Amino acid sequence: MRTLRVIGIGTGNPEHLTLQAVRALADVDAVFALDKGAETADLLALRRAICAEHIRKPYRFVAAEDPPRDRRPADYGGTVEAWHAARAELLERLIRDNLGAGEVGAFLVWGDPSLYDSTLRILERIRTRGTLPFTCAVVPGITSVQALTAAHRILLNRIGADVAITTGRNLADGVLPADSTVVMLDGDPAFDHLDPELTIYWGAYLGSPDEILLAGRLGTVGPEIRRLRAEARARHGWIMDTYLLRKP
Amino acid sequence: MRTLRVIGIGTGNPEHLTLQAVRALADVDAVFALDKGAETADLLALRRAICAEHIRKPYRFVAAEDPPRDRRPADYGGTVEAWHAARAELLERLIRDNLGAGEVGAFLVWGDPSLYDSTLRILERIRTRGTLPFTCAVVPGITSVQALTAAHRILLNRIGADVAITTGRNLADGVLPADSTVVMLDGDPAFDHLDPELTIYWGAYLGSPDEILLAGRLGTVGPEIRRLRAEARARHGWIMDTYLLRKP
Repeated sequence: MRTLRVIGIGTGNPEHLTLQAVRALADVDAVFALDKGAETADLLALRRAICAEHIRKPYRFVAAEDPPRDRRPADYGGTVEAWHAARAELLERLIRDNLGAGEVGAFLVWGDPSLYDSTLRILERIRTRGTLPFTCAVVPGITSVQALTAAHRILLNRIGADVAITTGRNLADGVLPADSTVVMLDGDPAFDHLDPELTIYWGAYLGSPDEILLAGRLGTVGPEIRRLRAEARARHGWIMDTYLLRKP
Repeated sequence: MRTLRVIGIGTGNPEHLTLQAVRALADVDAVFALDKGAETADLLALRRAICAEHIRKPYRFVAAEDPPRDRRPADYGGTVEAWHAARAELLERLIRDNLGAGEVGAFLVWGDPSLYDSTLRILERIRTRGTLPFTCAVVPGITSVQALTAAHRILLNRIGADVAITTGRNLADGVLPADSTVVMLDGDPAFDHLDPELTIYWGAYLGSPDEILLAGRLGTVGPEIRRLRAEARARHGWIMDTYLLRKP
C-alpha cells in the first residue's frame, strides 16, 4: 500500500507551513508536482526550497508537464472534466513508476487543498479507477483568503453577516452573492461592471516579500489596482492575487 | 509604543500552529484572554500549553471574565454592539495595566482572526478611542472550515461553483446561499427546515484526539448527528463543531 499526503503550504510565505505540515513532510519519499503554465521558476523554486528544508531523508522530486487545457472554452464543465481525466491518467503513471509499495508520496498544494485546487479530485478519480491502491491524508493550509485578511488586518465577515467565495467567472453578472465576497481565480479583474461604491481589499503575492496591498472605494482604487497588477505581472512574469468586496 | 499580535492558533490541534505563529509567540511578554462561558478548562489548558511550549521568555498570562451577553436578544446588532463596547473598555484597561511601553502582547484566537471572531473589532475600537496607542499585526491560522474539509478529505467548492460561509442564525429560513455552504456558530442545529436530499459533512472537536466526523444524506444522518452532538456535549461540557451542506 502506498501513502499519499496532500499538504497545504500556504500562499508563498515559507512560514505559512503548519507544524502538522512540517511533520507530514519529514518522512516523505517522493514529491509529485504537475507544472502549471502559471507556475514559473519562482514558484517551483519556493516549493523545492520547502522540500529541501523539511524533508529529513533522501527524496525524489517528480515533476511533469501538466496536460494542455483550453482556458476559455465554450463548455467549461466538460473541458475541465476532460482535463482532469488526462491529469489523472498522467498522475497514476507517475505514482506507479516513482513510488514503491510502503512508501510515502506528497503533493504540496498552494493555499489549502480544499479551495479551487484539483489534487483531491484527481486522486479520487484514480481511486475510482481501482488500479492503484493508496491511502490518502490531507493537511490543511493557510488559504489566500486568510492571508488577505491578515495582511489588511480586517475581518472577513461583518457582524452576523454571510461571506461568499466565488470566481471572477461567476462574478461576470456583477451581482455580489453576499455582504462580503472573496473573488479568486480572476485572471483579468475588470471591476467596471461592479458598483463603484463597494469597498475592495486587494492583495497580490500575499505573504511573500513582494506582497502588494491596496484597499478603498472600488470606483476610486479600481483603476490603480489594474495598473499595479499589470505592472507587477510584467515584472514577475506571473501573478497570484485575490480580493474581497464589501457592500456599501 | 506597545505591540499587539493577534495570532490564529487553529482548531485545537497544537500542530495547526504555523511557523509564523511559532515565531510570533517566541518573544511575547503578555498573553491576553477573555474567558468565554463556552471556553471551559479544556480549552484554556490547551491555550496555556501552547504558550508554555512556544513562548521563549518569562511571560504573563492575563485572563479576565468576559462581560455578560444576552445570547438570544431581540436586537442582535445592538446587543453585540453594546457587548463589544464593554469588552473594549475591559481590554484597554487590561492592556494598560499589564503591558509596558515597548512590550509585546498576544491574543491567541481559535481558528483564524478573520472569521467570526471579535478580537480585531475590539482592538479597532480601542484604537478609535485614541487613548492607548499600539501597533497591531495579524498572523493567519487554520480555520475550522479547512480542518473540516481536510478531515473529510473533500473540496470545499464543486468545480467552478461558489461557496458561502454563514451562521446557524442566518440559515433559519432554510435557503442555502450557495452550492456549498459552511455553517458556523450553530449552537443547536435542527436540520428539520432543510432539504433532506442535501449532503452534510459534519465535524466536532476538529483536529483534536476527540474529533468526531459524520457525512451523508442529511435526511438520513441528521438525527444521528444531533444525537452524537448532544452526547459529546454532555461528556465534554462543551462542543465546537461546524458543517458543510452541499446541494443535491
